[in-house]
Amino acid sequence: MDNVTEVYNFSAGPAVLPVSVIKKMQAEQPSFKDSGMSVLEISHRSSLYEEMFHQAKSDLRKLMKIPDTYEILFQQGGATLQFTATALNLATKQKRIGLIDSGHWSQRAGQEAQLVGVEVDPVASGQASGYTELPYQLNLTGAYDYLHITTNNTIEGTMYRRLPATEGNLLVGDMSSNILGQSYDVNDFGLIYAGAQKNIGPAGLTIVIVKKDLLGQAQALPAMLDYSKQAKKDSALNTPPVFAIYAAGLVFKWLLDLGGVAAMQKRNEKKAALLYDYLDNSTLFKPAVTKVSDRSTTNVPFMTGDEALDARFIEEATAQGLLNLKGHRLVGGMRASLYNAFPYEGVEALVAFMEKFAKTVGEK
Amino acid sequence: MDNVTEVYNFSAGPAVLPVSVIKKMQAEQPSFKDSGMSVLEISHRSSLYEEMFHQAKSDLRKLMKIPDTYEILFQQGGATLQFTATALNLATKQKRIGLIDSGHWSQRAGQEAQLVGVEVDPVASGQASGYTELPYQLNLTGAYDYLHITTNNTIEGTMYRRLPATEGNLLVGDMSSNILGQSYDVNDFGLIYAGAQKNIGPAGLTIVIVKKDLLGQAQALPAMLDYSKQAKKDSALNTPPVFAIYAAGLVFKWLLDLGGVAAMQKRNEKKAALLYDYLDNSTLFKPAVTKVSDRSTTNVPFMTGDEALDARFIEEATAQGLLNLKGHRLVGGMRASLYNAFPYEGVEALVAFMEKFAKTVGEK
Repeated sequence: MDNVTEVYNFSAGPAVLPVSVIKKMQAEQPSFKDSGMSVLEISHRSSLYEEMFHQAKSDLRKLMKIPDTYEILFQQGGATLQFTATALNLATKQKRIGLIDSGHWSQRAGQEAQLVGVEVDPVASGQASGYTELPYQLNLTGAYDYLHITTNNTIEGTMYRRLPATEGNLLVGDMSSNILGQSYDVNDFGLIYAGAQKNIGPAGLTIVIVKKDLLGQAQALPAMLDYSKQAKKDSALNTPPVFAIYAAGLVFKWLLDLGGVAAMQKRNEKKAALLYDYLDNSTLFKPAVTKVSDRSTTNVPFMTGDEALDARFIEEATAQGLLNLKGHRLVGGMRASLYNAFPYEGVEALVAFMEKFAKTVGEK
Repeated sequence: MDNVTEVYNFSAGPAVLPVSVIKKMQAEQPSFKDSGMSVLEISHRSSLYEEMFHQAKSDLRKLMKIPDTYEILFQQGGATLQFTATALNLATKQKRIGLIDSGHWSQRAGQEAQLVGVEVDPVASGQASGYTELPYQLNLTGAYDYLHITTNNTIEGTMYRRLPATEGNLLVGDMSSNILGQSYDVNDFGLIYAGAQKNIGPAGLTIVIVKKDLLGQAQALPAMLDYSKQAKKDSALNTPPVFAIYAAGLVFKWLLDLGGVAAMQKRNEKKAALLYDYLDNSTLFKPAVTKVSDRSTTNVPFMTGDEALDARFIEEATAQGLLNLKGHRLVGGMRASLYNAFPYEGVEALVAFMEKFAKTVGEK
């Protein structure tokens, strides 16, 4: 690795950021907006912060076409804390939710909801397919406070292009790994949350988008778990993660400059197609997800079927600057995460290396 | 402000960082440890992260002389989330704690504990003095899961140099605004927590130091609020705030290079003495806290007694590059926060400006 200057970072998160964003952060590091202070040093009660925060929020609103009837919150603790917060804030009437089980992270959302006393009804599951296919048909029985969906399954490599019919139920979406990379209609959701460290940028920030009329149902929640209190203080109830918000704001600007979510989705489809096309035609490598319409554009798990060969591939790829290709232990093999900031050239480099590797080991 | 190149940032948090740390972050921004990736882009499952994390943890252990019988957790959500987490994890037997009420932030800790069903007994209060003096005498009645103390009161400007006698009770300390700036014996505490954005550096990281034998009392807590689960996963139960941990690690190294907490305490005492000496001899400005032994070294509130004059002082100071001197609304006037990274020269500049200002308005 020591001699590799250019690398491609396939990490599932924290993940690659746009080069121009890294450069801007570096340039602004010692003095933010000529203040003489680093953005790491500014008070969250200063106009410098206020302006930066509101710009980021309004750019996100523009990017996702978020109606004014929705609040945008910038929180901490990752999606995992939102598994809890969502249940505490919204599962107040029936204390029962429907879980669309599309894999590991949706199961985790269910487990954490149960821990705060919410009944979790598995209304659909991808288990029969080993989570290589998405469940669309929901078995709804009785009343639910909401249905929970994971729009993109980082580990399993599946992604909802169309949402299941919810029969009038409120939908809560964990969009951690494809927010801003795939177009969704916010109006289809009562609440959306997403850890920033995959498709936005820095770890330590979690986006929550919530319909305003859903706020205030729960009473006497701890401040950091109470969307209503957080909304009232515009996400500055206590010290917000200033730097992570700043970095996210730079990414939002970068996305707007490139044409927004629709443009990004096209880029992501093009990147993913290059890799899937190769995988579909390879006799050595195979994709974990074969059902084309369920394939994620941001996370592509694949394998040779031979663990030792997978390990060798990962080792040799790493030496070539193709980094973090090791798959999640639940799926094994390799995984290429191709988030918004991941360049097309990186996929070309990967496919070229796979071709070379396949020849070396003698294509099966 | 536009023409001021050197500024002194008196912010109460997020606050000034060491110049050398900012420079190092800037230099390392595009490629962390020659990886070709920014530290913002590295996976929390990578050896790059692991090494950085363990170094930061071990440096903090060294700095605070934390015995091996204590876990160190790197969390998110600020002290406010720890108000909740501490109560959930430790107030499990009596469901009752004793609150040493030394001001706003200790009250907030009590309120959040009550929100999760814990009885809060105010065992001591600084209310009679308007929180300008610290309560030391505790009125303990019955059994407590723990007593809660705020070692430094950011808003009121008071600081415990010696701890109240706890009569064998477990002590939980919120050290957010003087951790690593004042020497305490970790053994006096069952648990210590601190938001990083005051005396360590970046917002978005919260340090928790907890005695290992206190873990595992609570059952079925949400993952992000469960110290035991967090300890088992070494603070990587989900994606940790990588950049904030990295920045904190750089600050820890800087502290070690300068001689650690004892050396820092001396520096802080010297800085604070310069300001307090001036305040005690000024006929225009007066310190909010007159009891010398209770004065904070990190947060110094002061005022003229004339709100309009305070406002004018703040405005003119700001124009001179003496930034963020506005006091908290609860105390009014001005506040100079002199955390570890704040330079002695900044206090000299402030005092010089105060002298000049006093002459201009005609010292009373």
